[in-house]
Amino acid sequence: MKIETLRWAGNKLEMIDQRILPAAFEYSSYDSAASVADGIRSMVVRGAPAIGVAAAYGVALEALRLQGAFTTAFESGMEAGFTVLAQSRPTAVNLFWGLERMRRVWGSMAGQDNAAVARRLLDEAHEIRSEDIRINRAMGAFGAELLPDGARVLTHCNAGALATAGHGTALGILRSAVEAGKKISVIADETRPFLQGARLTAWEMVQENIPVTLITDNMAGFMMSRGEVDAVVVGTDRVAANGDVANKIGTYMVAVLARRHGIPFYVACPLSTIDLAVRDGAAIPIEERSAEEVTGFRDAQWAAKGVKVRNPAFDITPAELVTALVTEKGVVNRPNRENIAGLFRS
Amino acid sequence: MKIETLRWAGNKLEMIDQRILPAAFEYSSYDSAASVADGIRSMVVRGAPAIGVAAAYGVALEALRLQGAFTTAFESGMEAGFTVLAQSRPTAVNLFWGLERMRRVWGSMAGQDNAAVARRLLDEAHEIRSEDIRINRAMGAFGAELLPDGARVLTHCNAGALATAGHGTALGILRSAVEAGKKISVIADETRPFLQGARLTAWEMVQENIPVTLITDNMAGFMMSRGEVDAVVVGTDRVAANGDVANKIGTYMVAVLARRHGIPFYVACPLSTIDLAVRDGAAIPIEERSAEEVTGFRDAQWAAKGVKVRNPAFDITPAELVTALVTEKGVVNRPNRENIAGLFRS
Repeated sequence: MKIETLRWAGNKLEMIDQRILPAAFEYSSYDSAASVADGIRSMVVRGAPAIGVAAAYGVALEALRLQGAFTTAFESGMEAGFTVLAQSRPTAVNLFWGLERMRRVWGSMAGQDNAAVARRLLDEAHEIRSEDIRINRAMGAFGAELLPDGARVLTHCNAGALATAGHGTALGILRSAVEAGKKISVIADETRPFLQGARLTAWEMVQENIPVTLITDNMAGFMMSRGEVDAVVVGTDRVAANGDVANKIGTYMVAVLARRHGIPFYVACPLSTIDLAVRDGAAIPIEERSAEEVTGFRDAQWAAKGVKVRNPAFDITPAELVTALVTEKGVVNRPNRENIAGLFRS
Repeated sequence: MKIETLRWAGNKLEMIDQRILPAAFEYSSYDSAASVADGIRSMVVRGAPAIGVAAAYGVALEALRLQGAFTTAFESGMEAGFTVLAQSRPTAVNLFWGLERMRRVWGSMAGQDNAAVARRLLDEAHEIRSEDIRINRAMGAFGAELLPDGARVLTHCNAGALATAGHGTALGILRSAVEAGKKISVIADETRPFLQGARLTAWEMVQENIPVTLITDNMAGFMMSRGEVDAVVVGTDRVAANGDVANKIGTYMVAVLARRHGIPFYVACPLSTIDLAVRDGAAIPIEERSAEEVTGFRDAQWAAKGVKVRNPAFDITPAELVTALVTEKGVVNRPNRENIAGLFRS
């Protein structure tokens, strides 16, 4: 089964509702910037690359929705659409990258009629979506070479097809390794509080018969100490200019443990996730989400009443703990300011 | 509110059912070794010291139950009782310590009638229970001195009143520090999969108005990296002769992170938890529990169908990561084979 995280159907954007997976597999449909922003905020769609693609469609949908309006109304409506999308989630830079790219296209269409602008923006959203899959395939090919045959690979959260337009970043590397004939088994951290590992990564791997073992997040150290992990591969929501990596909360702990046990720690990172405007990890905004995610899961609420809660959704892994970034342009060993800048010069 | 984890009432043992806390606060009642073993296995009662006390009562209950039998039936029944209790859980050494102590008392009563033996065993169980609270108070006093005023203390799992006969080991140290007039705030790891932190530690602290903040297990590194943790205090299920510490799964990861951030890592450890017969952590048996604990919580099951699961209930923190053991005989800095042996000589 090929997973289509986002698809265009009937002049609407449809997205798999990832909040209810794996119990139910359903598409929700979106027809405006505000509705897409809602879908991003509520995590119908999540994963940095998928958020970037969704935001691009959000802009195109807004243009389609407003194309009958007068020019001034169209322009102010579009600005409002960009704003609501930009405010949906703060950490994944692909969101801003996608919006910026759509804004440039819009800017290049000055003087043309609304309908032509809307068509062009929709084409660009389609292109961003297709590009994302091509990029994931390229990263997959580079990353697959890093994994030995028989590798037992630990991953955190879901950087799979569901986090992208398809194939996945971290899981894309595993898929490409399997396609290349390597025997790969996956250890999936469940990834509290939203349980992307238990629900999404496990589901993707089971769909494709790639052996997958689920653990709670606090078992990763045990597995490493027993020699049961050969490599770690994760995705990222934003990489700073110096190579510091923002990714799902808990990634930092995995990286520290991997270093202690001499296990390579790879980050699958399309260039669109690198933010040269951010000097280091300390400058990356970390989203704090609601307490109810930590005191339980969905309707099951188990924590003692009256307890305070922290819920940072991401953490920062310093570049020194990263063995390599895997990009669509190749593998960047021991990432630093210089070799990252080099990616954008070549 | 004083928490009585285990109490004697109407010639039965009553234990708070910790599986349903904090949604419900209820005692379950036990009248035989087999029923107590069931209560231990199903985690009605958990925490190494509490398991030791429960096992002692299990032996006493079996003697009371069988006191009307002929001597040979009494003896074989008692042996069966010891066996079923010993098989209830493998990692906490207090279980075996409690059983051994009861066996010695039984052995000292050779030739006396069953009723006298049963009375004496019940007295011993009562004494073990009282002793446990006295020991926790002594550890608390020693441990409280290690914590600076205003300390933000991270703890993992529940080593509280609920894990003991009362006061607690790790949480006992925090309680004693608060009683000594120090301002202490607690950061509680939720402790998947059984959620002892979210359910039990948070509940105990809320009861006593000690400020407590709940995080998921994978947030501990984030909190440390932001300078929001001043010390870690945990309990233990078994300490090897060299100072390696078995404790709830995830403890090892916290210890590695604490070392990286220069944060002291303290282990509250009554002498009954030290197992001189075990040379190092590698020789401590690690219980693996059922998959359903990891694929969800209680009736809420969220993981993808078909995923394999690992569920080790404990991990090993090597002695080198332990800043100090806090025992009822004092603080053992940088635990090793020599200073641990010294505890039993003095």
